[in-house]
Parts: sequence; C-alpha cells; structure tokens
Amino acid sequence: MKTYLDCYPCFLKQALSAARRADASEEQQKDILLAAMNELEALPSGSMPPDMAYKIHKLVREKTKNLDPYKQAKEQATQEALDFYPQLKIKVESSVDPLEMAVRIAIAGNIIDLGVTESYDLESTLNRVLAQPFAINDLEVFRERLSAVNSILYLADNAGETVFDRILIEQIDKPVTYAVKAGPIINDATYEDAIAAGIDQVAEIIDNGSQAPGTMFEKCSESFMQHFEQAELIIAKGQANYESLSDYSAPLFFLLQAKCNVIARDLGVSETDIVLKKQL
Amino acid sequence: MKTYLDCYPCFLKQALSAARRADASEEQQKDILLAAMNELEALPSGSMPPDMAYKIHKLVREKTKNLDPYKQAKEQATQEALDFYPQLKIKVESSVDPLEMAVRIAIAGNIIDLGVTESYDLESTLNRVLAQPFAINDLEVFRERLSAVNSILYLADNAGETVFDRILIEQIDKPVTYAVKAGPIINDATYEDAIAAGIDQVAEIIDNGSQAPGTMFEKCSESFMQHFEQAELIIAKGQANYESLSDYSAPLFFLLQAKCNVIARDLGVSETDIVLKKQL
Repeated sequence: MKTYLDCYPCFLKQALSAARRADASEEQQKDILLAAMNELEALPSGSMPPDMAYKIHKLVREKTKNLDPYKQAKEQATQEALDFYPQLKIKVESSVDPLEMAVRIAIAGNIIDLGVTESYDLESTLNRVLAQPFAINDLEVFRERLSAVNSILYLADNAGETVFDRILIEQIDKPVTYAVKAGPIINDATYEDAIAAGIDQVAEIIDNGSQAPGTMFEKCSESFMQHFEQAELIIAKGQANYESLSDYSAPLFFLLQAKCNVIARDLGVSETDIVLKKQL
Repeated sequence: MKTYLDCYPCFLKQALSAARRADASEEQQKDILLAAMNELEALPSGSMPPDMAYKIHKLVREKTKNLDPYKQAKEQATQEALDFYPQLKIKVESSVDPLEMAVRIAIAGNIIDLGVTESYDLESTLNRVLAQPFAINDLEVFRERLSAVNSILYLADNAGETVFDRILIEQIDKPVTYAVKAGPIINDATYEDAIAAGIDQVAEIIDNGSQAPGTMFEKCSESFMQHFEQAELIIAKGQANYESLSDYSAPLFFLLQAKCNVIARDLGVSETDIVLKKQL
C-alpha cells in the first residue's frame, strides 16, 4: 500500500507518542518531530507506511537511547491477553464453527496496536469483533486452503495479540511457523514476546531478521525470505503486514481490523471493519 | 497560549483539510504539506497556534489561488444556524435564567469550527451544551460586569456561530460592537457572514483589520486596537481567541468549548467541556 498524504500528520503523532513513551525530554520530543519532518520531506515516492514508521522509531531509539520504549506496554498487553485466554478457549470449543471463532479472536487481538492509537479496550473489542459481520470474508477459501496445504507461515503482529494468534494456531491441524520481529519496533512481537504468550508450545518461532514494522523484504533475512518464498499459505496479521505486502503476489491471507480511515479506504471497507482477505 | 508539540500533527491535518477544501490536486496537496512542514521547522519559539494557522491558510490560498476555500461551508453553517434561531429564542425566553441560557447557546455555536474537525452535529451539541455543567463558570462575575459597563466588545469566531452570538447579544441590554475578520480565514466570520446572521440588527459590526485566526495584535488594525484597549468588557469567542489572548491582561471573558485535548489541558478542563472564563 502506498503512503497516503493523510499518513503524514499521523506519522508526526506517532513520533511524538513514541518519544514520550521513551521518556524523551520536551526538547528531545521537538528534536524528534523536526527530524521526522525531515524524513517525511525526503521520503521517496512509492514508499509504504512501514518505511516511514521504521525511520521514525529508529530515530526515537537513537535520540533517546531507549532501545525498547514499548517494553512495559508489551508485557502488560501479553498479561492482559493471557487473562482472557481461558474464556476464549471455551468460546472456541463451544462454537458451532470453531475455526471461524478462532479467526475472529485472532482479529480481535489486532486491536492491540500502539502504532495507531494510544490505548484500546480489549473486552469491548472482543464483544464487537466476535459478533460483527466480516467486511471482506474469504473464510471458506481460507478453510479450504488450510486443509490442502502441509504447513503454514504465520506473520505475527503485536505483543499480546500473540495470545489470540495462539488460539487460532491451536485450531490449525498443521505445522505452523510463527515469524516475529528480530528486535523491538513499536509494540510488535519479538521472540521473547511470543514465548511469553506460549507460542513455543504450538508453533516453531522464527524471526524475520528485521526491526521494521510489517514485512519489508529488503530488511528481512535470507533465511526468512526462504520461508516466505516456499510457504504454501501465509497468514499475515495486522495493518503493517497489509501495508507492506498488499502489492505482492503470494499465497497470503490478511487478517486485520481496519483501525484508521486510510487503510479502510485502501481496502474498500469502513473504519473498525474486520477483514479476512485472500491475496489475489 | 503557547504552541504545544501536539499541535504539530494537527497543523498538518489542517493544511491537508484546507487544501482539499480548496480543490487542490494531489500534487498541490503534497506541496502544501511540505511547505507547512517548512513553516513548522522555522516556527519561532513562543509562537501561538494561530500564528501557524495563519501561515498554513495563507499558503493554501496562495498555492491554490482559492481565496476562500470555506465559503460554501460558511454559507451552509449560517443557514443551518438560522433554522435553529426561532426555537432557540423560545428556549431563552422560557428560561428561568435567560442570560445563562443565551451564554450556553453562544457556547454551543462554537462547535462550528472547521479548523478543529471536519464536521459537527449542531443538534446533538445543542442538547449537550444546554444541559452540561460549566467546567469553568464565571457567569456571576460576567453578569455583574455586564450590568456595570457601558458597552461591550464582542470578538467573533466562526460563521454560523454568529447566529448563536446574536442570541446572546439580544440578551445584553448594552451597545455591542461585534468584531469580525477583515478577510476569509478558515470558516471565521467576515463582515458578510455577520450580516447574513443578522448581527447588523443587534450590534455595530467592525473588522479587526486582520486575516488571521483569533486576535493577533500585530496583525490587527490601529482602529481595532483602539476599540480593544478602550473596551470595558470583551467577550472573546472560541479557541483561537483564547489561544491568542490567554496571556494578555484585559477585561476578557472567554466563551468556548474545549474541542481538542491541548486546549483542554491548557485550561485545566476536559475535552468537550464548556467554559465561561474571566481573564485574571
């Protein structure tokens, strides 16, 4: 997905939010905003939103010397999500369509995205997402493909969301490889975050070799790229994976909530809509 | 009020919104965003938000050759407000405290602010503002001062809001001078807009000599400054008048809704709160 002009103000908001999470002084915050504007002015045409987000969070880390401003938020999110785990398992087990329920739960977990908003309400999001119709619903193709393939590559998104991913993985009767980020970027899940969510009990965890949001090929490791290229079915979670992969041809299924009007418009849906979309 | 760092993303949002209202092409919109960032980088410390808003809307006018991007929105707002006028007059006349009711109506009208949001719901705002408690309530001092002075200077804010101001002016049994902008800036009221709201029937209309939001002294005419300096009581409507005058000593009463969290924090209130504040 291209970077829309509406993303520009949002990048500055994100820079300021990240700077504050990194305990930047007022002066450092201003410095970060000015540097972010310089990056925006120099942004090559054709850049995707994760390109700019990568630059912003890199400069926040560099200017504040805080290597993981979202560490505490990630730990809290995982803990809160784990508290929901038992009741969500019961929901799946008692559902007439456990796979659909698990998909909805995985999508509900996508609200835990501190790149888009400052806070979220997990319980009300679950209540909403478990009941609302899909704006794009490729569930039947997804079900069919799941039963046809030998293994699945699962591109993770945020820490805490990992717990909801685990519930979906537990409904998939095939080996799953779960790809996380190689280092902290926003509240995206790293190896540690995946372990804390218990993903190691249900999938093989790898990292994509990069510290960028989404899946930016030029920043990924060769070994990850081999996994990607050989994958028979790829589950791509969240906005940044959509933003970075929506223009590539691959056996992808995007699972996400449209949490801003830019991505909603790009997908042809409305804000807060839920999406299970097969890549063409 | 100083410019907070939270205002930076908001300025870009405002630039983009104004550019689109001026029918700017995609390329012009980007050009305007980049120019707005240059202005932000060069913003002198101590600048107030209306300084930057002035620059943004000036460059939108210059780059698009559209001298009044909000013209249609202003006309619609005035018409919509006029449709409410008869029922609001009845509300005031049947109220146990007609002055308080008229103040509330004038504050409700402050929702018509296209510098802060893209749209508003006038009816639901009226229902809310006519009932909610004041977060800052200097009504009794205001009432007392009104009866003590010989005349009032009323600093207008937006077109359409003018109709609600008229209702307040009609409750004031003293000569009122109503100061509008000397030329189009956002959806602020100009002479024409004031006439369309019928202000000429209840007050003398002057302009402040400037095409800037709020009341920026260095851009105002000498004749307006004389009015200002000689005023016994000044009603200052809306956020931009608060932003530009909150640090000056004058017999001011600010009437506004806190429509963003920055101004709410500066005032020590919450977003959507209503304020009638005497300047210290």
